[in-house]
Amino acid sequence: MTNIKDLAKMARVSVTTVSRVLNNHPYVSKEKREAVLDAVKSTNYQKNINAVHLSKGKTKLIGVVLPFSDHPYFSLLLKGIAKQALENNYHLVLFQTDYMQNKEIEALEMLQKKQIDGLIICSRTCDLQIIEEYLQFGPIVLSEDVKEINVSSTFVSHYKIFSNALEYLYQRGHRKIGYCIGRSTGANSYNRGLAYKDFHEKYSLSYNSEYIIDKCLYFEDGEKVINQVKLMNIAPSALLVTSDQVAAGIVVSCQKQQISIPDDIAIIGFDNQPIAKMMDITTIEIPLMEMGRNLFLQTINSEISNKEVPVKLIERKTV
Amino acid sequence: MTNIKDLAKMARVSVTTVSRVLNNHPYVSKEKREAVLDAVKSTNYQKNINAVHLSKGKTKLIGVVLPFSDHPYFSLLLKGIAKQALENNYHLVLFQTDYMQNKEIEALEMLQKKQIDGLIICSRTCDLQIIEEYLQFGPIVLSEDVKEINVSSTFVSHYKIFSNALEYLYQRGHRKIGYCIGRSTGANSYNRGLAYKDFHEKYSLSYNSEYIIDKCLYFEDGEKVINQVKLMNIAPSALLVTSDQVAAGIVVSCQKQQISIPDDIAIIGFDNQPIAKMMDITTIEIPLMEMGRNLFLQTINSEISNKEVPVKLIERKTV
Repeated sequence: MTNIKDLAKMARVSVTTVSRVLNNHPYVSKEKREAVLDAVKSTNYQKNINAVHLSKGKTKLIGVVLPFSDHPYFSLLLKGIAKQALENNYHLVLFQTDYMQNKEIEALEMLQKKQIDGLIICSRTCDLQIIEEYLQFGPIVLSEDVKEINVSSTFVSHYKIFSNALEYLYQRGHRKIGYCIGRSTGANSYNRGLAYKDFHEKYSLSYNSEYIIDKCLYFEDGEKVINQVKLMNIAPSALLVTSDQVAAGIVVSCQKQQISIPDDIAIIGFDNQPIAKMMDITTIEIPLMEMGRNLFLQTINSEISNKEVPVKLIERKTV
Repeated sequence: MTNIKDLAKMARVSVTTVSRVLNNHPYVSKEKREAVLDAVKSTNYQKNINAVHLSKGKTKLIGVVLPFSDHPYFSLLLKGIAKQALENNYHLVLFQTDYMQNKEIEALEMLQKKQIDGLIICSRTCDLQIIEEYLQFGPIVLSEDVKEINVSSTFVSHYKIFSNALEYLYQRGHRKIGYCIGRSTGANSYNRGLAYKDFHEKYSLSYNSEYIIDKCLYFEDGEKVINQVKLMNIAPSALLVTSDQVAAGIVVSCQKQQISIPDDIAIIGFDNQPIAKMMDITTIEIPLMEMGRNLFLQTINSEISNKEVPVKLIERKTV
């Protein structure tokens, strides 16, 4: 690749002169300027943009940490982030972590090394203390309710959502309620667990740990849930399912096995994805696209802000 | 931000000495080296990685152009690309284009400016001639059968898939066959259209342009398809649906409207996504994860290669 020294040699001028011409500085004679531009033309020279970044300190790249890009929850969040990035002329660097901590650290290190201008963490495994250490290097935005450290965030309250949904089921006569989650670790599941525990204490209901069904992420996991429920001594009468995809899988699996919804088991999904509407699934609407857009805007805004996004119960036919 | 000049001032040495210490060059006295390292420590100085890229010419970033990140086809392809990138210690820069040509050009320009080491184009709107111009700047890999230009690719033959699927339906007595696609422009749809036309000529069947249903991308589009079919004077007896999501939407919509599958209308989906398995949809299996992995490997490999990936018809209950 041609470099600035080659250009200087070809144009018979100094490296400084080439640099001045490339950066549009004054004080270069017309002859020298033309000689340099001729050399640029004949070599198809491309200014290395990393050199530009070096002087300006901006890459126009924002990192996005997410565990899986093919999960409808994260792909909708990513779509919102990407739409806003497009409008603001930024590009996204994707960190698909599969929840491996070292991959999250890599993203944080890219922020430290100025390879990205900011970082959006859609779901994390790192401790907040680790993230706090990297805040000095650039904006980091989280998609959860963070109180421990001073960082921007856009989130829904999973405690409130669970409390309200459990209350709704209780009012409709349900006393044996279970729930399905993607993973048992993580801040969101911690808050859900807390709401579940508080609900059982409030109404003095017996707590059955079997009713907490882990690793439910995709449509096909719905079948697994129903098979697990069938093995229980006392089956739950209702399930909160933290993904409409899994809820849809449950509905299809129940149809196949002649299990009646909501008579045998009631279902509340999450997100209000199109599949929930088409399959008449009662669900909690979470405005993921809007959340994604806001996460992006917080990343390029220097002020710290925390935004709780309201959710809505959509009543359909599975409760 | 601290720069190299500040460090020189603090350590009371020249800029050259600081640079030598930072790059581990010899010929620096022990005292000066320690003075520089103290300054680095006290200012928490971070070497700007763009300066490193400048000297090495590698970013370890690969760009991925795709129209929508939330469509199951592209999100599975992206998952495969991301998995392989993870294994090879690369990161991905996402270009979600919504099929806007200027966004594709931006990605190509980032390759030209060495901001990325290579580019995977999952689906394009740019002419091949435009892409050809950028091949001099770094590897570009396409996910389609390209003969016009010398570029690596991983693809399935949409002509063959359509021919075989139409033949399969013909053998089962279907003479009025329609199909649903995501967009009518684009190389894949061109090849599908060709197969469709050739099939009609081969069997002297009448060709009905109404049977080509455009803009079918998501689950919820299934309902739109059925509503459109109901308005036709003569409805097709079978549909090739180039997305399992749309096929699943069609199945659910037919259930609601008491339309019997396959008796009233037969359906063949595409991809063999989990939803097709759970809903017993006959489909063409396309190994998207494997294709994504190969696209990535081709990008970091300097040799040009073209790989056609075989597909498989999975017979279930919708034909």
